[in-house]
Amino acid sequence: MSLPSTLVQNSVQWLSEAAPCDAVVVSTRVRFARNVAGHPFAPHATSLILQRVRRDIGEAFAQAPHFNEYYSLEMTDVSGTERGFMKEARLVSKEMERGGASRAVYVAHDLRSSVMVNEEDHLRLQALEPGFQLARAQEALTQLEAEIGRALPYAFHPRLGYLTACPTNLGTGLRASVMMHLPALALKREVESLAAPLQRQGLTVRGFHGENSDHTGDHFQVSNEVTLGRSVEEIEELLAATVNAIMEREMEARSLLLTKGGVAALDTIWRSYGVLTNARKIDSNEAMKLLSRVRLGIDHGCFPHLTHAGLNALVAEVQPGHLVLRHGAGEETEERDIVRASLIRQILTAQAQQ
Amino acid sequence: MSLPSTLVQNSVQWLSEAAPCDAVVVSTRVRFARNVAGHPFAPHATSLILQRVRRDIGEAFAQAPHFNEYYSLEMTDVSGTERGFMKEARLVSKEMERGGASRAVYVAHDLRSSVMVNEEDHLRLQALEPGFQLARAQEALTQLEAEIGRALPYAFHPRLGYLTACPTNLGTGLRASVMMHLPALALKREVESLAAPLQRQGLTVRGFHGENSDHTGDHFQVSNEVTLGRSVEEIEELLAATVNAIMEREMEARSLLLTKGGVAALDTIWRSYGVLTNARKIDSNEAMKLLSRVRLGIDHGCFPHLTHAGLNALVAEVQPGHLVLRHGAGEETEERDIVRASLIRQILTAQAQQ
Repeated sequence: MSLPSTLVQNSVQWLSEAAPCDAVVVSTRVRFARNVAGHPFAPHATSLILQRVRRDIGEAFAQAPHFNEYYSLEMTDVSGTERGFMKEARLVSKEMERGGASRAVYVAHDLRSSVMVNEEDHLRLQALEPGFQLARAQEALTQLEAEIGRALPYAFHPRLGYLTACPTNLGTGLRASVMMHLPALALKREVESLAAPLQRQGLTVRGFHGENSDHTGDHFQVSNEVTLGRSVEEIEELLAATVNAIMEREMEARSLLLTKGGVAALDTIWRSYGVLTNARKIDSNEAMKLLSRVRLGIDHGCFPHLTHAGLNALVAEVQPGHLVLRHGAGEETEERDIVRASLIRQILTAQAQQ
Repeated sequence: MSLPSTLVQNSVQWLSEAAPCDAVVVSTRVRFARNVAGHPFAPHATSLILQRVRRDIGEAFAQAPHFNEYYSLEMTDVSGTERGFMKEARLVSKEMERGGASRAVYVAHDLRSSVMVNEEDHLRLQALEPGFQLARAQEALTQLEAEIGRALPYAFHPRLGYLTACPTNLGTGLRASVMMHLPALALKREVESLAAPLQRQGLTVRGFHGENSDHTGDHFQVSNEVTLGRSVEEIEELLAATVNAIMEREMEARSLLLTKGGVAALDTIWRSYGVLTNARKIDSNEAMKLLSRVRLGIDHGCFPHLTHAGLNALVAEVQPGHLVLRHGAGEETEERDIVRASLIRQILTAQAQQ
């Protein structure tokens, strides 16, 4: 089988909804790491045990009515391109993208929640929301966790909390991440100076694709590092306060950039828009860089026909796997660059005609 | 007094007419160097003699009905900016732009012919036509020469022909120049290899602003070097054959560029157009470079709303003096860059809406 066509069709829909703080925050993601009690952790399990874990989870989910509205996908059944696509759509992790026996993913029809099976932990549950919506995402995640908990016993220790394959996830098993787009702070090279104090608070700043990835197009993920010794609420309170502070600094930097930058700043924004709406081929890095500047123009009222949410969806849509599966591009880099340019033109111009 | 407003208003009108070969040839110019018999040449004349020459010419022109439709401008009456403007409009030479006592210029109301007084020679007569129109320009020039000849005796020697201050103009006193736009040959760096054989035939290739100027925006002037020992017809026949050959090579290079260059070539053209239609400030060099690429796009059918003649006029219009006198820019470079960008946007977009 290949990916369900509705999954492919809807992969950026949730992102294109107007959402709180979407001028700065692309999306909010929360996940719980959980393991099924009585089985060894996945990294230490034989393939037979992984099979059994997969089967147990499959049977439990089949009983739970909640999962009727989930796609169920075995990693061995989907191609590398399709796994890449799901990674881009934030439905699976980099580790899961590698594929492997007894690995699977359940994806809600609206693509806002998913469950990975036999990644580092038996279960990785996540909820996604556009913009900055920690509480809403957490509510969805808590509900998902309870749903699964009714069907399967989680490995839990009264003092340590939820047990996980890696001790860094012990306790709550929570990672809350907020994907921020910080073109103005990046331009002023202030993101590095933000990162250091966060670390001391148990928070961290990562790139577009999570750990060890670069800050493609000025995107940064702020998330908690510490999972143990703090409640879910404490973790998310700290994260929310931090995101709010960064957001304020970014908006300040943006307005300063435009008042102090004057015509030169406006010129850079409009030229970027001009290239995006006219180029016949464009690579991913350049597209991200130019879309970053278009973001600054939206704030300044240059493009009344564009929305931050639309831009967030477009940034997701120009990723290689999306171009291949949603827009018929081939695997050749140049062909993808041509399709990417055409898509950007279409979307920015179609929005211009509205 | 300052320049007549109708002169300023009409400075690019003749260029914006569709004309033969305007895809490659911007304009055709022919000029005769003439001196009034019985007076020393201007470079050797005292200021008193120059005054007398100016007065004699003024009186003769006042009698000739032909010059009713000419603006008459004393160089001491117009500002440096205005002289620069006339230089850009090709009505006066670089030397005349410097101004000076007893120097004047007569300009036809349609700006297609002008007469400079007391430049290197007492009289420099010229006729301009858009595109490649040697015969038509020569006809206008011959008529103008006859008109003046009826009122004033030219310094003439039976064996040497018309006498001129500099021996390089002796004989016919003719310089016929064809301004060509050669973006494809320039890209292939083939213009230099064209120039050498021309020299051997008594022709020369110069930059946008004539002698010692650079090839701004891939513009090249092809003109005769030799004025003595050949008739006007012989000179112009040779020039025409040469221009035709260069034109053919340029068109060949353009079509090769687009067939071989494929998407990359189209991409460069469209990006140039995108920057031109969106930039908020642009300097003269960049504008010329990008407009050069737009020219290639017109040939390829990318911009059905643009014409070569319109582009020729636009190239003339974005010159500094034109921005100041026609579009209210100040003398500051940045201010002119802003007005230039705005004008280019307006013109390219207004044409897009037609």
